[in-house]
Amino acid sequence: MVAGLIGATGYAGAELVRLLSEHPNISKMMLSSVSFEGRRIEDIYPNLLERVSSPLLNAEEVIAGSDVVFAALPHAVGEPYAHACMERGIHYIDLSSDFRFDDDEATFNAWYNKGYAYPELHKKSVYGLVELNRKRIKELAAAGPVIIGNPGCYPTAASLGAFPALAKGLASQECGATIIVNSVTGITGGGREPARAYHYPECADSVAPYKVGSHRHTPEIARNFSAMAALCNKAPLAGNTAPALIFTPHLAPVNRGILSTIYIPLAAEWRVPPAEAGQNKIRPISKEIEAKAAEIHKLYADFYKDEPFVRVLPMGLTAATNGVRQSNYCDISVHMDRSGGTLIIISAIDNMLKGASGQAVQNMNIIFGFDEKSGLKAIPALF
Amino acid sequence: MVAGLIGATGYAGAELVRLLSEHPNISKMMLSSVSFEGRRIEDIYPNLLERVSSPLLNAEEVIAGSDVVFAALPHAVGEPYAHACMERGIHYIDLSSDFRFDDDEATFNAWYNKGYAYPELHKKSVYGLVELNRKRIKELAAAGPVIIGNPGCYPTAASLGAFPALAKGLASQECGATIIVNSVTGITGGGREPARAYHYPECADSVAPYKVGSHRHTPEIARNFSAMAALCNKAPLAGNTAPALIFTPHLAPVNRGILSTIYIPLAAEWRVPPAEAGQNKIRPISKEIEAKAAEIHKLYADFYKDEPFVRVLPMGLTAATNGVRQSNYCDISVHMDRSGGTLIIISAIDNMLKGASGQAVQNMNIIFGFDEKSGLKAIPALF
Amino acid sequence: MVAGLIGATGYAGAELVRLLSEHPNISKMMLSSVSFEGRRIEDIYPNLLERVSSPLLNAEEVIAGSDVVFAALPHAVGEPYAHACMERGIHYIDLSSDFRFDDDEATFNAWYNKGYAYPELHKKSVYGLVELNRKRIKELAAAGPVIIGNPGCYPTAASLGAFPALAKGLASQECGATIIVNSVTGITGGGREPARAYHYPECADSVAPYKVGSHRHTPEIARNFSAMAALCNKAPLAGNTAPALIFTPHLAPVNRGILSTIYIPLAAEWRVPPAEAGQNKIRPISKEIEAKAAEIHKLYADFYKDEPFVRVLPMGLTAATNGVRQSNYCDISVHMDRSGGTLIIISAIDNMLKGASGQAVQNMNIIFGFDEKSGLKAIPALF
Amino acid sequence: MVAGLIGATGYAGAELVRLLSEHPNISKMMLSSVSFEGRRIEDIYPNLLERVSSPLLNAEEVIAGSDVVFAALPHAVGEPYAHACMERGIHYIDLSSDFRFDDDEATFNAWYNKGYAYPELHKKSVYGLVELNRKRIKELAAAGPVIIGNPGCYPTAASLGAFPALAKGLASQECGATIIVNSVTGITGGGREPARAYHYPECADSVAPYKVGSHRHTPEIARNFSAMAALCNKAPLAGNTAPALIFTPHLAPVNRGILSTIYIPLAAEWRVPPAEAGQNKIRPISKEIEAKAAEIHKLYADFYKDEPFVRVLPMGLTAATNGVRQSNYCDISVHMDRSGGTLIIISAIDNMLKGASGQAVQNMNIIFGFDEKSGLKAIPALF
Repeated sequence: MVAGLIGATGYAGAELVRLLSEHPNISKMMLSSVSFEGRRIEDIYPNLLERVSSPLLNAEEVIAGSDVVFAALPHAVGEPYAHACMERGIHYIDLSSDFRFDDDEATFNAWYNKGYAYPELHKKSVYGLVELNRKRIKELAAAGPVIIGNPGCYPTAASLGAFPALAKGLASQECGATIIVNSVTGITGGGREPARAYHYPECADSVAPYKVGSHRHTPEIARNFSAMAALCNKAPLAGNTAPALIFTPHLAPVNRGILSTIYIPLAAEWRVPPAEAGQNKIRPISKEIEAKAAEIHKLYADFYKDEPFVRVLPMGLTAATNGVRQSNYCDISVHMDRSGGTLIIISAIDNMLKGASGQAVQNMNIIFGFDEKSGLKAIPALF
Repeated sequence: MVAGLIGATGYAGAELVRLLSEHPNISKMMLSSVSFEGRRIEDIYPNLLERVSSPLLNAEEVIAGSDVVFAALPHAVGEPYAHACMERGIHYIDLSSDFRFDDDEATFNAWYNKGYAYPELHKKSVYGLVELNRKRIKELAAAGPVIIGNPGCYPTAASLGAFPALAKGLASQECGATIIVNSVTGITGGGREPARAYHYPECADSVAPYKVGSHRHTPEIARNFSAMAALCNKAPLAGNTAPALIFTPHLAPVNRGILSTIYIPLAAEWRVPPAEAGQNKIRPISKEIEAKAAEIHKLYADFYKDEPFVRVLPMGLTAATNGVRQSNYCDISVHMDRSGGTLIIISAIDNMLKGASGQAVQNMNIIFGFDEKSGLKAIPALF
Repeated sequence: MVAGLIGATGYAGAELVRLLSEHPNISKMMLSSVSFEGRRIEDIYPNLLERVSSPLLNAEEVIAGSDVVFAALPHAVGEPYAHACMERGIHYIDLSSDFRFDDDEATFNAWYNKGYAYPELHKKSVYGLVELNRKRIKELAAAGPVIIGNPGCYPTAASLGAFPALAKGLASQECGATIIVNSVTGITGGGREPARAYHYPECADSVAPYKVGSHRHTPEIARNFSAMAALCNKAPLAGNTAPALIFTPHLAPVNRGILSTIYIPLAAEWRVPPAEAGQNKIRPISKEIEAKAAEIHKLYADFYKDEPFVRVLPMGLTAATNGVRQSNYCDISVHMDRSGGTLIIISAIDNMLKGASGQAVQNMNIIFGFDEKSGLKAIPALF
Repeated sequence: MVAGLIGATGYAGAELVRLLSEHPNISKMMLSSVSFEGRRIEDIYPNLLERVSSPLLNAEEVIAGSDVVFAALPHAVGEPYAHACMERGIHYIDLSSDFRFDDDEATFNAWYNKGYAYPELHKKSVYGLVELNRKRIKELAAAGPVIIGNPGCYPTAASLGAFPALAKGLASQECGATIIVNSVTGITGGGREPARAYHYPECADSVAPYKVGSHRHTPEIARNFSAMAALCNKAPLAGNTAPALIFTPHLAPVNRGILSTIYIPLAAEWRVPPAEAGQNKIRPISKEIEAKAAEIHKLYADFYKDEPFVRVLPMGLTAATNGVRQSNYCDISVHMDRSGGTLIIISAIDNMLKGASGQAVQNMNIIFGFDEKSGLKAIPALF
């Protein structure tokens, strides 16, 4: 099968090249690049020498010759390619934000300052968070060519971390209850283009928040949380009824990885009074709270037990980005604060894999009925 | 004046040596080390060659020959030295946690598994968070030899970040309101002793939370928050009536620095409805919320306008650890979330300076009536 | 086939586990660890969770149950295991220095302060630098159980970089001609055991030479250079007649990788006069020297054209460690100095793969007649 | 005294601002920037907030108002500013390469593709390697306004490392004897402008040589070596009679620092036969060679005993970049190879200080007769 890549020379594109070149069901890749059309991929990425050798074409040639097309482009330019793929009757997997909001053009427009040029495409697209939408992806793909809105890196880590708590009704729905997602990303998250923020001397040896309270991934995370909370049987939910969300991204001097620390206020029936209840000093975590954490841990482990790429770490371990580096895993660890009222979930992914290109390949595997793990078997490199 | 250092060969001790050797009021240092007694400081730290040359004595010799004693030791071993200094009538500045809890032995014992051997010392000691206790430090020092419990690194960054909001009544005191302090530290925070967690290949290129919900700095931060909230005139407060606290520390691959992202739920009168009020989709931050953020920013700037080492960054800038590296500054930036209900404060310090040795020198300057900035004039090294 | 690993919990051992778990010819691994006997590998390395699950046995159990045994141990403890494997009639691949010196016990003893307990084993062992000894490895393995002395990390990078120049007579054999190997290693080269030199704050953000002029890999490199020079037809060579060698290792803050900068004085017939010949100022590199560099580049490319894991980069590119990271490749770039008398070769490997565990798997593949690339197909991760 | 800075917003300029703002003899700075004229320095470098507040003017205004002018500009643009300063009768310290080659316009032109616009300025300028030219700098400054060609970062580390060996006749002058300078720099060496080579994900966790055999600092180093060798009394030397030079720069993921490993073939009278003399195996370093190394170490220590910023480390220690970080020191360690024929010198500097702005301030101190250490007293920050 021929896989086409539009935007092959950005980091997500190059990672797709690396993954697809070893994928057992892909016999050939066709690559395009606006910046480097006419050159070869191995000139731009010499790490590919003797492994991948391919000219860089234009997008039209790629679409014309491929059985599936991945687009790893900046946002707001992908619709015409999606349209062309639908016309040709081939699946289209978009790694930008263009197809992540379904038909909610107003939200996309509010955050990305751009409307939909082909609104009908967004009615047929599906958000590619596999663990949430696997069934629907399969159904749509069975019915015809599909457009995948491949999830953002932060939304993937945050949503997988909160999913069991939301879907099982652990999260408080009380007025004012707010889930806080505090995330740290590696610098590859900023892409391949040199810029001050990613200039080595400016970001090495430093930790820096950015876009505090205003990052574009906020509505994507919030929409996912709503959809997940709606799965809870406790109460019929409609619309944006998940707890409120605050999302703060940070930059840290690592190449790959997203680490999300997710604070989820617990519903009343899941709370445990702290050790110091009744006095006015705070004390270490109580045995009762530890027991509740273990109970929630079991719920998480059960929830994800059949997921090939989500690992709920044993109690006592804490997720970290080096536990998933170079792999498609999302590692999750379950904790409770000593106050007994807040669940703390740590989730870690490799932003280039589960947070981008790995998840895109996972979507392709589902669409075509391949083994979902094909091309994604790398074991995390702890060091 | 002769400054004595007990525990001179740990990182905090070595940093004190570096600072005091250029301090205009210190003519001589006397150093002790259990690990390296009999050797010389410049053998252990060759970066000091031609600048500091001193034998490593034992603690008794240091105390006997000094006008002020700093102790940079593990916790739970400092009391006898404090006692000896009081007997000799000289000031004692303790960088461990031993004297941070005043006479609240129960809390110290609950978190550090150790009681007080000299309870009376803790009645006379003062917690050395200068911005909170400057007046009291001066008064005590005027009255006789004083014991300073130099603050922990995390509590310094967290407390300075939250201080104006707590003292001016911005923080919600409603039931369930919880301040979340999400902190990242550099690896020097783990000290000089090699250990798996600080072994380069295990912590480089990774971000890792640790001691989630259970770190020993939690009660110190909570106590500070209570003391700060008690300054608010709005309501008479007693005991531990600050909002609840969750504190999560993380390790990131930087040498120095603590970055705290502090989420403070706002009191009703400070909240602003979000842009999306009345609909069920979330939208970018509104002009009204931005205006409120500017108002709070002004309040912060006014609050700290006379503090020599706290800088409230202009609106639009975000604090980061490389903005304070190698300096005694605490940089603070003020943000609001787009939901309008939570104040987000970023505070950054160099954990070795404002978070440890720099603040200890600042305390000494206050005790002796030196210029508070003496020995602490290094400008941050952005790169 | 069952692969046994003795010393599975060190870094080289853990990397072998990762490689062998995905090797198509290995159906099972048996692991031993002195430090963690009785526990499980996934407890020590949680990055293996859901991928590798295995108890940690003792060495005897491993040898008894395996078809091939890898030993990733400190030096000077492997001989009894090698002996046991020979007794059992199974191949033994030793990643330490114990079997790298053939029957030259005197040299081993001079540098490692230890004699041979089983001298006869060293007569049958073979040094596993595949590119030099592939034929001999095959022959020995065909004849019976073999012991592989898997090469050191520095010697691999240095020897592969110099091999064509030595074997083809480019290197000067004149009196005083000295090859200088200036190498930089990542911190994983120091192993998993925490120590001051590898403590993050001591090695991050710093470049540091160590064991200048006295590193134990020196005799291994020199022996390889002699063997390679002996292949040159120009003159009958005997003994230690390669050019003299200086080897200087450095530590740099990267996790993986060895970068060797190799200065090879050229034999008279390969030298070109510099641009400034005849005047007394130095000038940029001349066209004639550039042409000679291209000629030598072609010689290198031809020399390695059938090697699966050595890539001679196109002229104009310079080898770097991120070009081979997470792969078994050795990347080589060819340069000449502007003085026209010295060939400068840059060679880069991942010290954990081609410099240790990858090369060990490559040796196993050769011994058993597997595809030499089996289990080693990872494409370098540029970022 | 008013110090003027032309090019204040590059890294070297910003470092000068940091140094001069604490210099006891500088009462005011005037700053210029082409990129940011009309803005303020603290807007560009917020780490300066509350410490330095200054508008960014144009170069003419700066020259008109200053008592001394520093220029931290790209090469080949500084001559008109130098000319203007001479006209005004004020000293001019140039941090670019423009005034490093005295009246040797041909060499400058050959390497920088540009002739001299004001040749007469270069007859009066002096190369500011203080340890070599202190006396001449003083003399010239006493006679009138002077132009300083502040040395390059690599040439400073290399030249200080080789100086005693060259000046005292240790280096072989035999035909073919070549000094090899293998250097590693931190990424700040590439300046403030974002570029692919300094983009975090491309240079983090990697070691990469660049401009192998062709870097522009080569002729500067060679010229210094010649000048130093000419000081040797053993033989009257003229012109370019130093040993041949090979210089190879590398990039490593550290912010600051240059580490030079310098291989100096010894003159016959300084050589010692290796331990293995008479046999054909190589052996560890001999006692005789170690004794010779100690002798050379003493020679180095004596040579530099009065230099305020050169530290010859005690035998047994090895220079590293974290030993000089954030300071104006050059640390040197002395080693011999086990072959007894080559001296190996390690020299380390902070490229931003002794390699650029610190040395420029040192030159100013000499010119004006200030204490040479004024403004340069920072003790290295080991971590």
